[in-house]
Amino acid sequence: MAVTRQVLDTMTVGIRPEVGSETLAAAIDAMLECEEAVNTCAAAMVTEDDVRELREAIIRDMNCADVVAVTRRVLTRANDTALLVAQLQACVAACEHSAELCGRHAGHHEHCRLCSQATRRCADACGQVLRDLPR
Amino acid sequence: MAVTRQVLDTMTVGIRPEVGSETLAAAIDAMLECEEAVNTCAAAMVTEDDVRELREAIIRDMNCADVVAVTRRVLTRANDTALLVAQLQACVAACEHSAELCGRHAGHHEHCRLCSQATRRCADACGQVLRDLPR
Amino acid sequence: MAVTRQVLDTMTVGIRPEVGSETLAAAIDAMLECEEAVNTCAAAMVTEDDVRELREAIIRDMNCADVVAVTRRVLTRANDTALLVAQLQACVAACEHSAELCGRHAGHHEHCRLCSQATRRCADACGQVLRDLPR
Amino acid sequence: MAVTRQVLDTMTVGIRPEVGSETLAAAIDAMLECEEAVNTCAAAMVTEDDVRELREAIIRDMNCADVVAVTRRVLTRANDTALLVAQLQACVAACEHSAELCGRHAGHHEHCRLCSQATRRCADACGQVLRDLPR
Repeated sequence: MAVTRQVLDTMTVGIRPEVGSETLAAAIDAMLECEEAVNTCAAAMVTEDDVRELREAIIRDMNCADVVAVTRRVLTRANDTALLVAQLQACVAACEHSAELCGRHAGHHEHCRLCSQATRRCADACGQVLRDLPR
Repeated sequence: MAVTRQVLDTMTVGIRPEVGSETLAAAIDAMLECEEAVNTCAAAMVTEDDVRELREAIIRDMNCADVVAVTRRVLTRANDTALLVAQLQACVAACEHSAELCGRHAGHHEHCRLCSQATRRCADACGQVLRDLPR
Repeated sequence: MAVTRQVLDTMTVGIRPEVGSETLAAAIDAMLECEEAVNTCAAAMVTEDDVRELREAIIRDMNCADVVAVTRRVLTRANDTALLVAQLQACVAACEHSAELCGRHAGHHEHCRLCSQATRRCADACGQVLRDLPR
Repeated sequence: MAVTRQVLDTMTVGIRPEVGSETLAAAIDAMLECEEAVNTCAAAMVTEDDVRELREAIIRDMNCADVVAVTRRVLTRANDTALLVAQLQACVAACEHSAELCGRHAGHHEHCRLCSQATRRCADACGQVLRDLPR
């Protein structure tokens, strides 16, 4: 979203200039899409007839939705690099673990296919921010 | 975001068909942009030199960020119309109250200008969903 | 928790003195217990063998957990009475709708029994704050 | 809270038996108290006359409130040890960073004193769970 970049550029504090505007906006956008995809997928899986086969994936989606949302807030505030590194690492784990299980159901559930794509993109975008942060 | 519409169309339960895909996707997108704008603005206001003049606006942004995020989750799950109506009404109030105060600081803080725009758009989009929901 | 009362008494702004310290602390404690009970119950239901019979209850617990958590934050900040009234009304709806469905499974799932008790207590405590707030 | 232990004992999956009931319930209770203390303190600091001296502490409290809340949800679901370890590490960082700054204001702001106590207790309780988890 063009808005993300515009909004983020009003923040002058924190992790800048280590993390560039484009990397930061790309991560935020990937997180927003991921949250929506994973919340939709969790609720859709609960309503499926084969819900018994999806139980582990539902819990992972619930974890992922929560962890990404909070990581996005910490990244948006952008002022505590040590915390941000730890939280981004948790976020990558949450996204990868969700993608792994939803990926197995991608063939027969469209919401799982979209969710596993969105969580993988989010993990990649968070990984990019992690690479740019000083440690 | 095109992704929002694609993801939401995998949900077949709940408030459909009363609320159309476009109205729903527009609301979700307005909420995502609003959350990011208002979280950015809250953190930016805290760091401003004139923070004493912004104190009430900060609290309203904090409330708004929380309420919009949860309303988006309830709207995404889309299966409890009575709860959704009540939560959307709270969301409209949170957005309007935030827009009112950040609007006063829009002239000298760019993040407040963008935030008040985003919260007004979000209030409008939630109002549109409310108009379509049966009561 | 004794701590809740002690912490809340450091806040001098906002909805005081309309809502007394005891009513406020009782509501916050009921919300904390409710959040934990409903998050536990949602995750436990997902893992049950009869998950297909629990699907609607799971979604309601997910909504309830989110709505109570945010209502508690708005109540803790205690400075926007109109928003607080709307958010508390949504919270009562979320708790009652969750209690209704988990109550049906209380006989065969202990987590549903504890959850339906906790959500009913939370709805009552929020109702008490609502009665004390000016409108 | 006695309720926490009772509720958690209905969960039979996940990180049990590595993490015992008492360690788990103690951590959940410490997190609930921490969330309430840190949300109260953040809002109280924003309203203080010396808010300019508290700006960094406010941002850290906002981060801490969000991170603890989500860590508690992941711990309650208790089924993804690798994610839980990463999220608990982020939680310890968030609590310690908040305690560090609020501790400096503990002499003149009672909410900062209570908050720094609660965040330290929470960091300790999360550290205990981390020591019990297999890695």
